Amino acid sequence: MVKSFFKWLGVGLASLCIVAILVALVRLSFYEQLENNIHLAEKKDYLKKIAQKVSVSDSKGYPNVVLILFDDMGYGDIGSFGNTSIATPNLDTIADQGIKLTNYYSPSPVCTPSRAAMLTGRYAPRAGLPNLIMPSEHLMTSIQKISGDNVRLPADEITIAETLQAVGYRTGMVGKWHLGDHSPSLPNDFGFDYFFGAHYSNDMAPFSIYRNRNIVDKHPIDQTTLTSRFTEEAVNFIEKNKDEPFFLYMPHNFPHVPLSSSGEQKGKSLGGLYGDVVEDLDNSVATVIHALKANKLDDNTLVIITSDNGPWWEGGSGGFRSRKGDTFEGGMRVPFIVWWPGTIDGRQEIDGMASGIDLFPTILDILDLPQPSDRSIDGLSIKNMLLDNGKTPHKSLYYYTDEDLFAVRTERFKYHVRRPIVHTAAWQVPFAVAMNQGPWLFDLDRDKDESYNVSEKYPEQVRRLQNLMDQRNLEMSENPRGWLH
Amino acid sequence: MVKSFFKWLGVGLASLCIVAILVALVRLSFYEQLENNIHLAEKKDYLKKIAQKVSVSDSKGYPNVVLILFDDMGYGDIGSFGNTSIATPNLDTIADQGIKLTNYYSPSPVCTPSRAAMLTGRYAPRAGLPNLIMPSEHLMTSIQKISGDNVRLPADEITIAETLQAVGYRTGMVGKWHLGDHSPSLPNDFGFDYFFGAHYSNDMAPFSIYRNRNIVDKHPIDQTTLTSRFTEEAVNFIEKNKDEPFFLYMPHNFPHVPLSSSGEQKGKSLGGLYGDVVEDLDNSVATVIHALKANKLDDNTLVIITSDNGPWWEGGSGGFRSRKGDTFEGGMRVPFIVWWPGTIDGRQEIDGMASGIDLFPTILDILDLPQPSDRSIDGLSIKNMLLDNGKTPHKSLYYYTDEDLFAVRTERFKYHVRRPIVHTAAWQVPFAVAMNQGPWLFDLDRDKDESYNVSEKYPEQVRRLQNLMDQRNLEMSENPRGWLH
Repeated sequence: MVKSFFKWLGVGLASLCIVAILVALVRLSFYEQLENNIHLAEKKDYLKKIAQKVSVSDSKGYPNVVLILFDDMGYGDIGSFGNTSIATPNLDTIADQGIKLTNYYSPSPVCTPSRAAMLTGRYAPRAGLPNLIMPSEHLMTSIQKISGDNVRLPADEITIAETLQAVGYRTGMVGKWHLGDHSPSLPNDFGFDYFFGAHYSNDMAPFSIYRNRNIVDKHPIDQTTLTSRFTEEAVNFIEKNKDEPFFLYMPHNFPHVPLSSSGEQKGKSLGGLYGDVVEDLDNSVATVIHALKANKLDDNTLVIITSDNGPWWEGGSGGFRSRKGDTFEGGMRVPFIVWWPGTIDGRQEIDGMASGIDLFPTILDILDLPQPSDRSIDGLSIKNMLLDNGKTPHKSLYYYTDEDLFAVRTERFKYHVRRPIVHTAAWQVPFAVAMNQGPWLFDLDRDKDESYNVSEKYPEQVRRLQNLMDQRNLEMSENPRGWLH
Repeated sequence: MVKSFFKWLGVGLASLCIVAILVALVRLSFYEQLENNIHLAEKKDYLKKIAQKVSVSDSKGYPNVVLILFDDMGYGDIGSFGNTSIATPNLDTIADQGIKLTNYYSPSPVCTPSRAAMLTGRYAPRAGLPNLIMPSEHLMTSIQKISGDNVRLPADEITIAETLQAVGYRTGMVGKWHLGDHSPSLPNDFGFDYFFGAHYSNDMAPFSIYRNRNIVDKHPIDQTTLTSRFTEEAVNFIEKNKDEPFFLYMPHNFPHVPLSSSGEQKGKSLGGLYGDVVEDLDNSVATVIHALKANKLDDNTLVIITSDNGPWWEGGSGGFRSRKGDTFEGGMRVPFIVWWPGTIDGRQEIDGMASGIDLFPTILDILDLPQPSDRSIDGLSIKNMLLDNGKTPHKSLYYYTDEDLFAVRTERFKYHVRRPIVHTAAWQVPFAVAMNQGPWLFDLDRDKDESYNVSEKYPEQVRRLQNLMDQRNLEMSENPRGWLH
């Protein structure tokens, strides 16, 4: 009786394994069909249409766009955002001469989805890439494929770079991509004429440096010169393209771990090695700005500086609750500086809500280009907010991590539907499950660090914000990618 | 071949199970011998000795002591410590008339060990109770017993209450114990003439209310009146004992979850239900202070108000990093107020280091009583710091959670040897393991929220603080309970 039980248990387990392997193989082999052919065609039509409408080489009026993105830099890591340990005189000057947004959010608290959303104007689950991705060689990538997660940005998505390239901008990217390490989802596939940098984070391997589609520096590389090499490449790109409108996307690999600083700055900062690395980045910004000035481009260049999510192990969250990966403010409220001398007035601090998803529609708006008509764009243009009235176009903003919507905020209130279990401290997971923490309503006006649930005090706000979340979730379940026809 | 493999696998597993069960049963049956008989006897001798030295009923000079402890209240939850959402006018007045410590630490970031250490003056692993304990009925308690963890404070430990009781104080406890739910580790076993309250946290079951050793209100109870019932009992105790020196220990169950507020305060606070509960506590403090004044005891009563650890789900960490359970500041830096009209000057804010382990030696010092000679006391008297010079007696303080020493601080620097894995967000555990985060050196003078590791900048401090940790760990491994002979 016992013998035969164990015999059949063994046979059962073995059969399950075989079935699972077969299913996995089938899923893996069908994996690469993640594009929607209709919208691939619509994308081509859209890019052709805007190219017919506008050609920037015909006119002098079009601004250059420089978008500098830091990796895992917190709200509190820059002097002008309250830091007192790290010297960021150049960022502080830029912030002083431009606009500082104090309620700007990365669209996701993690690298990959934050970038996918920022470049497409669509929350990451809409853009088809809600999850962090790893190198193709990594076991996790196969597991993600088997479980049905995308491991690259679908080619039917439209990036800022593609629209600008279509209307005649010279488009260059220097730095970290992290939206796929193979075609058709490489930087050169998504609108960049030129790419110099890394496919993903500097803690992933193999970490090689590419120029366009070719490796120029094979893993393992010396990371101490990473920031200075990116800076040199950015300056070269500016100089080479100074006579045409250009778009330079410069997503630094730092201050993501592992940290390493150039010889020049090493040991100088009161913020330790992290501070040294941030000071390297501050110097890099100065060099890029200097290149713009030296080529007399500063009056006609829109420079945007921000971060992809809150701080991870080190880095300051600026007093906001929690850190990278979490949908509390510390995971997603990040610094945001806009500098555009001659066009925007300096010394402005704007507290209206904005998000990384706004960059795509804002740049289209500045260029007077139409949005694609076959898909929902989640972001809203903040052009008027920046150039004119300081008022946010948003009635609400959503906080996604991976595929899940955890929170929504309006001007005053934030509604956190539950504590994300994966972001709960390991020892507290059983408590979190047992106690079903949440939903929480926070009054951000007075409770910056999300300490007090006021849902019993403002039940009508709970209903209103839960309703917004329900609507959003319904929309996403009915039409996850937001195709409009 | 395959059949016989599975057969023997099954037999092997079954045998392992049987052996494990036998081992568990043996461990369980030998479990209750956790006292050291020599030090049980030494404890009796010590208490007899101090009773011969001092008898407080012979003299009028001895102050009453009231120790009010909040459960899971954060550094930032009280107005005088920076809160702007919760009205705590009574605590603010007390703080204004007394001393506020801004660098006071609970001795552990979790309930049980924090209380064990505070009442004995010894870090929780020394006191034999480093871990959180659960009700006897709970499965976890059996697991702890099997794995060799204590589930009650060993009777050979000496508490503040026992020393005060020995010299003639009337000793009363009203509130939450959490150092064992059975003899010989109940409040009445550890020096309290009178006990009214609960054996453990209000999220544990069965949650019954005891008067001394008897249940007076059986689980499930109405928690909305918990604070007011404790307050009433405290006032009764004060009135009944107004003619003798007394020690009142009043560890509230709130603002630990699940939260519930009295009808009176409910819905009033801008800090939501958590705020209502804290406002209830503020009112309770006012009632206790009023009882002291009404009985003309205020001039001769030392009142201490603090918390057992940082905030958990809700509650404000005061801008410090992390929360309950963690050895970052947010887990252990808590509010601390001392009020003793006529003896200490008001309007003082002292930034010298202090810890819960200091209360035992401080109270002995105030009463001019010797410390026990058979055991190490980790705390130091802060009598002079409070009454005289404002200077901390500590060169360093240690941050334990469970049995593990994670950090040490000196006046300026804090050295965090590694990121406690169990306190890392669940999704980051693999990263934390892979990256072996730490050791980190923080410059608390300028980096209040522990964002920047400056260990490369100050290698001599790393060596010095690592050395302190090594010494402490060596001492603990050689003589965990700190017996001196």
